[in-house]
Amino acid sequence: MNKSILRAITLVFLVANLAFAKAQTQSDSITLRKIYTASLSDGNSYQWLDHLSNQIGSRLSGSHGAEVAVRWTKEELEKVGLDNVWLQPVMVPKWVRGAPERAYIEGDNAQITEVPICALGGSVRTKTTGLKANVVEVQGIEELKDLGREAIKGKIVFFNRPMAEELIRTFQAYGGCVDQRYAGAMEAGKLGAVGVIVRSVTHSLDDLPHTGSMSYGDLPVSKRIPAAAISTKGAELLSTSLKLNPNTRFFYKMSCENKGEVESHNVIGEITGTTFPNEYMVIGGHLDSWDLGDGSHDDGAGVVQSMEVLRLMKAIDYRPKHSIRVVLFMNEENGLRGGRKYAAEAKRNKENHIFALESDSGGFTPRGFSFDSDEANFKQVESWKSLFEPYLIHDFTQGGSGADIGPLKDTNDGIVLAGLRPDSQRYFDHHHAANDTFDAVNKRELELGAATMTSLVYLMDNYIEKTVISSNTKLKD
Amino acid sequence: MNKSILRAITLVFLVANLAFAKAQTQSDSITLRKIYTASLSDGNSYQWLDHLSNQIGSRLSGSHGAEVAVRWTKEELEKVGLDNVWLQPVMVPKWVRGAPERAYIEGDNAQITEVPICALGGSVRTKTTGLKANVVEVQGIEELKDLGREAIKGKIVFFNRPMAEELIRTFQAYGGCVDQRYAGAMEAGKLGAVGVIVRSVTHSLDDLPHTGSMSYGDLPVSKRIPAAAISTKGAELLSTSLKLNPNTRFFYKMSCENKGEVESHNVIGEITGTTFPNEYMVIGGHLDSWDLGDGSHDDGAGVVQSMEVLRLMKAIDYRPKHSIRVVLFMNEENGLRGGRKYAAEAKRNKENHIFALESDSGGFTPRGFSFDSDEANFKQVESWKSLFEPYLIHDFTQGGSGADIGPLKDTNDGIVLAGLRPDSQRYFDHHHAANDTFDAVNKRELELGAATMTSLVYLMDNYIEKTVISSNTKLKD
Repeated sequence: MNKSILRAITLVFLVANLAFAKAQTQSDSITLRKIYTASLSDGNSYQWLDHLSNQIGSRLSGSHGAEVAVRWTKEELEKVGLDNVWLQPVMVPKWVRGAPERAYIEGDNAQITEVPICALGGSVRTKTTGLKANVVEVQGIEELKDLGREAIKGKIVFFNRPMAEELIRTFQAYGGCVDQRYAGAMEAGKLGAVGVIVRSVTHSLDDLPHTGSMSYGDLPVSKRIPAAAISTKGAELLSTSLKLNPNTRFFYKMSCENKGEVESHNVIGEITGTTFPNEYMVIGGHLDSWDLGDGSHDDGAGVVQSMEVLRLMKAIDYRPKHSIRVVLFMNEENGLRGGRKYAAEAKRNKENHIFALESDSGGFTPRGFSFDSDEANFKQVESWKSLFEPYLIHDFTQGGSGADIGPLKDTNDGIVLAGLRPDSQRYFDHHHAANDTFDAVNKRELELGAATMTSLVYLMDNYIEKTVISSNTKLKD
Repeated sequence: MNKSILRAITLVFLVANLAFAKAQTQSDSITLRKIYTASLSDGNSYQWLDHLSNQIGSRLSGSHGAEVAVRWTKEELEKVGLDNVWLQPVMVPKWVRGAPERAYIEGDNAQITEVPICALGGSVRTKTTGLKANVVEVQGIEELKDLGREAIKGKIVFFNRPMAEELIRTFQAYGGCVDQRYAGAMEAGKLGAVGVIVRSVTHSLDDLPHTGSMSYGDLPVSKRIPAAAISTKGAELLSTSLKLNPNTRFFYKMSCENKGEVESHNVIGEITGTTFPNEYMVIGGHLDSWDLGDGSHDDGAGVVQSMEVLRLMKAIDYRPKHSIRVVLFMNEENGLRGGRKYAAEAKRNKENHIFALESDSGGFTPRGFSFDSDEANFKQVESWKSLFEPYLIHDFTQGGSGADIGPLKDTNDGIVLAGLRPDSQRYFDHHHAANDTFDAVNKRELELGAATMTSLVYLMDNYIEKTVISSNTKLKD
C-alpha cells in the first residue's frame, strides 16, 4: 500500500469518525432536551418534596419522621417500577432535643434579654436549672488556646467568628467557620470551660439559631460541656453587651439527650443495566435531616432529585447500560452511618462501583458539578460542556463530591465521584434552621437540578467505558 | 534594516505587548476583586432597597409613592458625593386601580366561586354594578380571530395560554405569552367582546393575579373593554368550569381609571470623566413599579444596583475616564416616557453616549449580560470571560438590553447596550404581583448583581476606546 492510499484511507476513517462523533453529539443533545422537558413539564420531584416536607416533616436519625420517610420513599420508588427496591439496615445514633431551649444575656442589676439559641446536635444537656456564667468571646479555636486555661476555666466560651462575606462560593465560607461549631466544645472543655455558645453559621443577620453536628472527640464524660448555637442577631447583641460590660453573664437551659443507637435504613432502588449489570452507578441524597425545619433543602431536595433521576430515565424510555441505583442515605447529619454502611455492604457483595453522584447542596438553580476524579475523566466531563450550555450549566470543577458517597472511594479504585453544585447564595440562610422549609424551594430550580443530574448520569452511562475508568476501576482488596 | 533585525524588533514589541496585556489583566483582576469585596462586605444596595421597598413601597407612575421615591433617591445620590445630581422632568400617564376588584365564576343555579383578579394597567373600568357574561376560552389572539365576530360578540374572552415550562430562559416563555395581556383586549374589542380575562403570566400555580401593561391601540373609546388578569389557579378553575358547563358565566367589577398625564421625573446622577468628560455611559433601572407589591425585584433591585455602581466606584477610589451617569427612569411599566425623554434630551444637548447598561430582570444571582452591539464589541466583551469566571458570571449573549435604554440606540450610532441577566427561574413568580416584595430579595444575590454591573462598567470604561466604537460612535443627525 503506498502512502497516498494510506492517507486516503486514514482520511476516510477520520471523516467517518468525526461524522459519528457529530451524530452522537446530536443524539446526546436530543436526549438532554428530552430529559429537561420531562423534568420541567411533567416532573415529580416537587410533588414528592411537598409530601416529604409537609406531610412527613423533619427526619432526624432515630426519629419517628425518619422512619416514616424510610417507608414512604420505599413505597414511592416501588411505584416508579424499578427492577428492585429494598431497605438496608443501619444502626444510627439517636439524639433528642427535648424541651425548647431558653437563653438570656444578663447585665448588671440582673437585667436580662432573651436570645434565640438551639442545642448543637450531640450536645449534652445543662442542669435542669440551667447554666449561668461569665462569657469569654473568641474568634476561633486558636484564640481560645492562646487565652489558655486560666482565662477559660469556669466560663462560657462564645465563638463569634462570622462567615466571610466576600467569598463567592458560600461553602468555602462555611468551611472557614464550621470548626467552631464542630470542635469548639471539645477544645473549650479541655481548658475547663463550663459551656459553649457558637454564632450560627449563616450569612443572614436574623433571629434563627442554626444547629449542626458537634463532637467531644474522646473527651471523658466529665469534661463534656453543653454546646448551643445562637442566632446571628443574638451573637451581635452578646458581643456588644460584652464590650459594654465585660462582666455580662449568659444563661441557657437545654434538655437534649443522647439515647444510644437504634436501627434505621438506607432506602435503595435499582434499574439493572442492559450491558454491564454488574457495574454500578449510585445517585443519592440523604434522607435524614435536622429537627428544626422540615429539611426541604437539606436534603429533601437531594432525595427527591435522586429519585427523579431514575423516574426520568423510565419516563423517556432510556434503558441504562450500567446498573443505576438511587440510594437515600440515613444519618448524614450526625454520623454518616448510612454512607459507611452502603460502602461496606457494596464491598462485601463485591459490587464494582464506577460512578457516584450526590445532591446535598440545596434545591437551588443548578450551576454545575464538582468532581473527585482523575484528570482523564475530568477532561471527558469538560468535553460535555457544550451539551450543558443550553441549560446554563457551566461550573465544572475538581474538588469534593458528597459526604455519603465519599466512603465508596475507599473501596473502589478509580471510581468517579461527583456532587451537584447549585447556586449557593441562599443555602446558608436556611441551613439547619427552622426556615429550611418547603416554601423556600422553587419548583423550577428543583426540577432543573433533577434534569441536570439525570443528564450527567446519562452521559456517564454512555461514555464512562470509553475513558480510562473501565480498566482502572475495580474493587480494592 | 535586514529581515532578521526586523523580526527581532517585531518580537520585542510582541513580547512587550503580551507582557503589558498580562499585567493589565492582572490589574483588572485585582480591581474586580475589590469591587466584589466592597459590594459583599460593605455594600449599600440592600439597605437602599429596604428603604425603597418598606418605607416607600409601590411606585406606579403618577402616584404619591413614585414622587416620594424621586425625592428620596435624589437625596441618597447627593449623599454619595457625585459631581452632579438632578431631576429631569417628564410627563407620565396616571392610571389608578381604585377599589379592590371582585370577580366570580357563576355556574348553573347561580352558584358562585370567587376568584382573584386584578385590572391590567391602563384598562377602563366596568360599570359600577360590574360586568357579567358568558365566556369564550381561547389560547391566543390567532384562535380569537379564527372564531370570529359571531362567536365573540357579547362575550368575555378568556385568554388562557400558559407560559411554556420547558424553556430554560423564562423571559422567552414570557415573550411567548405576553401578547395576550398586551393586545388581547384590543383584538377582542374589535370583534365585539364585552370584556377580557387573561391568565396571569407566571409559571407559578397560585392565587396571585399578575398585572401589567395593555393597550387599546387606536380603538375608539366605545370599543375599549375592561381587561383583567386572573390568578393561575383561578384560570384553571374557570377553564375546568367551562369544560363541565359551557354556559358558565363570569362576573367582575373594577373601578380603575385613566387620569390623564402628570409631571414626574427621571433621577440622574453623574461622575464626570477624567479623560473623556463628553462621552457618556449610562447605568440605570426604572424607579416606577406596579402598584400591587412594593416593586422590590421590578425594578427596585435595578434602581439600587445602578446607584451602587457609582457608589462602589467612589468606594474603591476609581475615577472613571468617561462620564458615568446613573439614570433612574420613570414610567417604564406603562409608557416608557422616562426612557424616551432621557434619549431626546441627550440628543438635544448633543451628548455622545457610547454605552448603556440596564438592570431590569430582578435582583437574583447574576449570570451574565446580554448585549445589543456590533460583533467587534461583543468579541471584546467575550475576551473578559476569564475575568468574570471567579464570580461565576458566564452567560454573555447577543440580544436585548433594557427597555429604558433602548431609545438611546436611535440617537447614538454604534452605542453598546447591555442588560444584566440574573438567574430567571423565580422572576415571574413575583413579577407584577403582590408578592414582589423585599423579603423575596436575597442580600448577597442583589450585591453580586451590583458588583457584576460595576465590573462591566469598569472594563467598558477602560477598553471601549480600543475597539471600533470610538470611531463609530457619534450622535445621529
